[in-house]
Amino acid sequence: MSSAPGPIECRGAIAWEAGKPLSVEKVTVGPPAAGEVRVRLAATGVCHTDAYTLSGTDPEGAFPCILGHEGAGVVESVGDGVTSVSVGDHVVLLYIPECRECKFCKSGKTNLCGAIRATQGKGVMPDGTSRLTATCSDRGLLHFMGTSTFCEYAVLPAIAVATVDAAAPLTSVCLLGCGIPTGVGAVRNTCKVEEGATVAVFGLGGVGLSVVQGAVLAGASRIIGVDIDAGKFANATKFGATECVNPKDYGDKPIQEVLVEMTDGGLDYTFEAIGRTATMRSALEAAHKGWGMSCIIGVAGAGEMIQTRPFQLVTGRRWVGTAFGGTKGRTEVPLLVKEYMDGKLKIDECITKKYSLDQINDAFADMHDGKLIRGVIVF
Amino acid sequence: MSSAPGPIECRGAIAWEAGKPLSVEKVTVGPPAAGEVRVRLAATGVCHTDAYTLSGTDPEGAFPCILGHEGAGVVESVGDGVTSVSVGDHVVLLYIPECRECKFCKSGKTNLCGAIRATQGKGVMPDGTSRLTATCSDRGLLHFMGTSTFCEYAVLPAIAVATVDAAAPLTSVCLLGCGIPTGVGAVRNTCKVEEGATVAVFGLGGVGLSVVQGAVLAGASRIIGVDIDAGKFANATKFGATECVNPKDYGDKPIQEVLVEMTDGGLDYTFEAIGRTATMRSALEAAHKGWGMSCIIGVAGAGEMIQTRPFQLVTGRRWVGTAFGGTKGRTEVPLLVKEYMDGKLKIDECITKKYSLDQINDAFADMHDGKLIRGVIVF
Repeated sequence: MSSAPGPIECRGAIAWEAGKPLSVEKVTVGPPAAGEVRVRLAATGVCHTDAYTLSGTDPEGAFPCILGHEGAGVVESVGDGVTSVSVGDHVVLLYIPECRECKFCKSGKTNLCGAIRATQGKGVMPDGTSRLTATCSDRGLLHFMGTSTFCEYAVLPAIAVATVDAAAPLTSVCLLGCGIPTGVGAVRNTCKVEEGATVAVFGLGGVGLSVVQGAVLAGASRIIGVDIDAGKFANATKFGATECVNPKDYGDKPIQEVLVEMTDGGLDYTFEAIGRTATMRSALEAAHKGWGMSCIIGVAGAGEMIQTRPFQLVTGRRWVGTAFGGTKGRTEVPLLVKEYMDGKLKIDECITKKYSLDQINDAFADMHDGKLIRGVIVF
Repeated sequence: MSSAPGPIECRGAIAWEAGKPLSVEKVTVGPPAAGEVRVRLAATGVCHTDAYTLSGTDPEGAFPCILGHEGAGVVESVGDGVTSVSVGDHVVLLYIPECRECKFCKSGKTNLCGAIRATQGKGVMPDGTSRLTATCSDRGLLHFMGTSTFCEYAVLPAIAVATVDAAAPLTSVCLLGCGIPTGVGAVRNTCKVEEGATVAVFGLGGVGLSVVQGAVLAGASRIIGVDIDAGKFANATKFGATECVNPKDYGDKPIQEVLVEMTDGGLDYTFEAIGRTATMRSALEAAHKGWGMSCIIGVAGAGEMIQTRPFQLVTGRRWVGTAFGGTKGRTEVPLLVKEYMDGKLKIDECITKKYSLDQINDAFADMHDGKLIRGVIVF
C-alpha cells in the first residue's frame, strides 16, 4: 500500500473576479477524497463557455474559481474506494459524469447524469467542499463545471473521468472533453442523422465544424455551412461542408427562406452552434416540413427565449437540443479516441494554436478575435 | 357501363359569411371529375376547427363555403380513372389525403401528403374549380379542408377517402375523420409512447380524451388529465386518466411545477390539446429532463408564438407537433375501424348528442357551451 496522498502545490490560472484577466499563480490542490481522483493535466482547450463565465454574464458564475473544462491528463492519485481508474491511467476529464447508477444513466435515454449535479453547480466537490486553494492567500477557490482544467492538477469524482488509450497524445484528445463530442454527438446521438440526409450547420466555430465532421461521418449527402464570417468557409469546406452560405449576401431575406429554396423544402437536420435565439428560430424554420429536426447546441444568454409559430411544429418539424452531444463520457469518449487513432476522426485539424499556461490570456484574446478553431494550453 | 353521373341537388349548411349562423339550403353538387369521387354523407362530426373558421378569426377562412371535415358516407359515383374505390364503398373522408406518390408520402416519415395541398387551401378541387353551388342563387361555394361534410353530398379526390368495413356504423366512424385519430395518433405515430410511460394531457375535450385513450392503448402507467374545467374529469377518468389536475387549485403556481413535483421530475410525454400557446409552454416544461417529449396538437390563434428558454431543449426535452395525429388516412383509418369493431377503440363514448342537419347551429351552440365531447350530425 502506498501512503495516502497529500496536498500538491502547483500552478493554476485563477479567475479572481468576473471581467478581469486570469492570474497565473501558485495553487494548492488537495488530495482526492473517497471516490475521487487527482489528475495531472497535460493539456486543456480554451472554450467560449470559459469566456462566457469569465465575462460575468453567466448568472451561475461564481468567483474566485479555476475555469477550464476541456482537459486531459494522467491520474496522479486516487481516493479510497476508487476501482474504475488507477494511478497512471490516461484520462479525459468530463464535465458531465457518467455514474451508471442514477435514474438518468439507467434510463438509457440521456447522458445527463444526475449524480453530482447539485454540488457541481455550486462549484464544490460532492462532499460540499473545494480541493482548490490560492497558495499565497490561503483563500479557497471554487471548482468550475466539475473540472477546473486551467491548473496543473485537478480533482474530480472518479465517475467524471474517461480512461483512454495511453498511446493517444493528450494534447490532442483533450478536445474530446467538450467541443468535438458536442458537435459529433449532436449528429450521432441526439439527431441520429442517417446516410444520405441533408444537413445545415449555423455557426462554423469549433463546435460547428465538429457538426460538419459528424455529418460527414454519418454519410450526409449535403452539408451546408452558414456563417456571417465568410473567413470561416475555407475551414468548413476542409472539414467536409459541401456548400457555405453567408446570410449577409441575401439582404433582408430570412436565411431560412434561402435555405428552404436551396433544398426544395428544407433540410432534414439543422444545428445551431452559436447561441443566438434568433438563429435558433431560423434553424428550426429551415428544417423540412413533415420530418425536419432542428437541434440547439449553442448556449443562449441568460433569460433569452426561443420562439416560433406552433404551426412549424404541427407541420412536422421537431425541435431538440443537446448537451455534450448526448455523449456518455466514460463509455463513448474512449471510442472517439479510437476513431481518432484510426484516422477517422479529425482532432489535430481543430487545434489552431498551442499556448503555455502563462499565455492563457492571449488564448482568450485570440478566441475573441475569431482567430482560433481551438486554442490549447499545454502544461 | 353506366352513364356519366350528373349534378345532384341536395341539402347543405352554407356558411355565407364569417360570424353568422349556417344556413341550411339547397345545394347543387357537381359530378366527380376524373380522379374524384362523390360521396353521400351519412354523418359528420362538428369540430372546433369548423367553429374557428366560421368565427372569422381563421385568416385562411374564405366564404361562402360549406364547412365540415369529419364525415363518413357511401360512394355514390366515381369519375374517370378511379380504381381505388368503387360505388357503394363505405368511406371516411380525409382532410389530409394519402396519394402514396408524392415526396411526403414516399418519405415514410410523415402523413402530410402534398398532392393537393395548394388547391385544397384555396377551397377548390385540384382542377381549380368548385363542385358546389348554392341552388337558389346559382352562386358558387368554396370547399373547406377538401371535405365540406356539412352537406348531403361531397366531392373529393379519390386519394382523400379511406374505404372502411361496411359493417361499421357510419354514424360512429365519422369521428375517425378527425378527432379520434388526432389524439390516438399523436400518442402512437408522433410520440410513439411506449408501455409503462407517464403521460399528461392538457385539455380534456374530444381530442384530449382521445389522447387519454391512445395512452391507455399504449400501456401508459400514469395518465394525468389537466383542465381548468373540473366538470370534464369524470369523462377523463372514464376514458382511462389515472389522475386529473385543475391548475386553478394551485393559485399562481405554474402547473408545470405542480406536475414536475407530482412525477419526480416530469412526464415522459405531454400533449397540448387546447390551442393556447401559454399551455404549450407549460406542457413542454412539464416534460422530464433528458428525454421528455411534448407534442402540440391544438391549433393556436393566427400569429401567436410559442416560446421557452432554450435550456429546456438543451437539457433534453423535445418539442414536436402533429396534424391528424400523423395518421396516414387511407392506410390507418381502416385499421382504426377494425379496432373499433373489435371493441378496442372507444368511439360511441365520444358522441354526446346527435343532431339533424337542420339543428346544426344548435350543435355549434352546444359545443361552445362545453356540453359536448362531440356532436354528430346524422343525415
